[in-house]
Amino acid sequence: MSLKIPTLEDIYTTHKRIKSLIHKTPVLTSSSINNILGTSISFKCENFQKVGAFKFRGATNACLLLEKENIKNGVTTHSSGNHAAALSLAAKQLNTPAYIVMPENAPLIKKKAVAGYGAQITYCKATLKDRETTLKQIQKKTNATFIHPYDNFDIISGQATCVKELLKENPDLDTIIVPIGGGGLMSGTALYCKLTNPKLKIFGAEPLMANDAYKSYKKGKLILADSPKTIADGLLTSLSPLTFEIIKNNVDDIFTVSEQSIIEAMRMVWERMKIIIEPSSAVPLAAIIENKTIFRNQKVGIIISGGNIDLENLPFKP
Amino acid sequence: MSLKIPTLEDIYTTHKRIKSLIHKTPVLTSSSINNILGTSISFKCENFQKVGAFKFRGATNACLLLEKENIKNGVTTHSSGNHAAALSLAAKQLNTPAYIVMPENAPLIKKKAVAGYGAQITYCKATLKDRETTLKQIQKKTNATFIHPYDNFDIISGQATCVKELLKENPDLDTIIVPIGGGGLMSGTALYCKLTNPKLKIFGAEPLMANDAYKSYKKGKLILADSPKTIADGLLTSLSPLTFEIIKNNVDDIFTVSEQSIIEAMRMVWERMKIIIEPSSAVPLAAIIENKTIFRNQKVGIIISGGNIDLENLPFKP
Repeated sequence: MSLKIPTLEDIYTTHKRIKSLIHKTPVLTSSSINNILGTSISFKCENFQKVGAFKFRGATNACLLLEKENIKNGVTTHSSGNHAAALSLAAKQLNTPAYIVMPENAPLIKKKAVAGYGAQITYCKATLKDRETTLKQIQKKTNATFIHPYDNFDIISGQATCVKELLKENPDLDTIIVPIGGGGLMSGTALYCKLTNPKLKIFGAEPLMANDAYKSYKKGKLILADSPKTIADGLLTSLSPLTFEIIKNNVDDIFTVSEQSIIEAMRMVWERMKIIIEPSSAVPLAAIIENKTIFRNQKVGIIISGGNIDLENLPFKP
Repeated sequence: MSLKIPTLEDIYTTHKRIKSLIHKTPVLTSSSINNILGTSISFKCENFQKVGAFKFRGATNACLLLEKENIKNGVTTHSSGNHAAALSLAAKQLNTPAYIVMPENAPLIKKKAVAGYGAQITYCKATLKDRETTLKQIQKKTNATFIHPYDNFDIISGQATCVKELLKENPDLDTIIVPIGGGGLMSGTALYCKLTNPKLKIFGAEPLMANDAYKSYKKGKLILADSPKTIADGLLTSLSPLTFEIIKNNVDDIFTVSEQSIIEAMRMVWERMKIIIEPSSAVPLAAIIENKTIFRNQKVGIIISGGNIDLENLPFKP
């Protein structure tokens, strides 16, 4: 079976389609972080995107592409949080209902956000199996269109628009590093970069404690996460057939990082840049912290994937 | 005795003098905060200023204006934190030593920052009297020039440049609200606004638990703070003769707010805008939260004074 993969033309069309509905997020730099790490980093700040995460790009694209006859039945998905919030707001803007399956251990701020956008939430256990079973029940009952958080052509095209904006603002980057959860952002980013500038190095970054993408990439076959456990709650999910196919062919390497480095990187950004990023977003910077010599004197682009985190439950210790 | 007060010409000259050394900080808005409060707020983000606070403007100006023969002896001050960090970095850039007196209860992040800029720190008790005594000892020993954190013409001229930038970007604001500690930012802001647009409403905001400026303003005479205690650690200091004189004549009113509203406002900014602000910076937004009807449908400018806060010791409760 050959999988349908977005072309450059698809990504351009997608960007035009969603442009007026999304924020063009800023690219920030920090001279003190650059001095500490000996690198020149451009942070594309999707924590300032609507719903506080890049996921709004793909979700908006998918909702805009719903068949006319399906709009009234709504959309449904399972997600630990940011895709859920993104789909809920995108659906709300289209006046279509959203039915969301969330693992019961999702961060409170993400549960609140989804509820705040008017979606109907069903909680399930935090396993992929229970998420999928619960989703099927809801689909049967509502006829809503399932918008997969990443194993979806339209979602991947949407996420690709983020690095397109970053490279337009900073065309001379040497390297891009992106966090890998289900691989939607990684796939879209790698596709766009390799299609426009094959010399750009494209790296993924993943928690060592949820290293299914790393293992899949190294073994050359899709390996699902086996009870992953990481502070980077957005990166618990496994790659899908579509995202694995794209990542396998377009990513130069994947770094895995410790939980301690993730917290160190997150703290560095909070303290030095005065912006709030969620743990998943700190994983690429953690990869630089753990591999300083590899990135020394490079111009690196990092996508800050989101900024949703429970403020009562932060990992910072004296 | 008549006090020397900055003119519009002084503020213009100051801005030219310091412009290349400071960051031009962004003005941010949040549609969700505007919706919640029924107001249109422009936040001038001095948390993104060098040293993470507006204080770098005044300190840079004061250091640039040192007499040639005094440069080698250095500068000294007492400050709970942001002015100390600002003076330390400004002095470092001029290759002149900085001697800083800090109250022992200053936030750890502020102590670290001052040390990081290479200043020599002397700790004292958290009373104005002990700060002044310790400072005098250091002045005697070093011959360093005392740069008062706010009772100083050059400092006030420097702080005034912040609202100048805000109004250049948003010329149609109705109201400006600024936090009041020692009154340096408030004085500079009120002076510039009343000199350029007398119709602009200029309000101060102060913690109820440190309401010396409110009391002074209402009684028409300078009243010092009596063991103030507030989470807004930048606002513990009292007005000085110079800042009181300017505030008395140029500020339209002063709001006092509860500790609970300060935390609520701070949380609102962290969660909705994904930026880190310190408690003192949340005081103007707290004033809007406590007085929604007064500010309904107004275009309000708020100066976010700084973003320095100990991440291990946050006030957010479930």
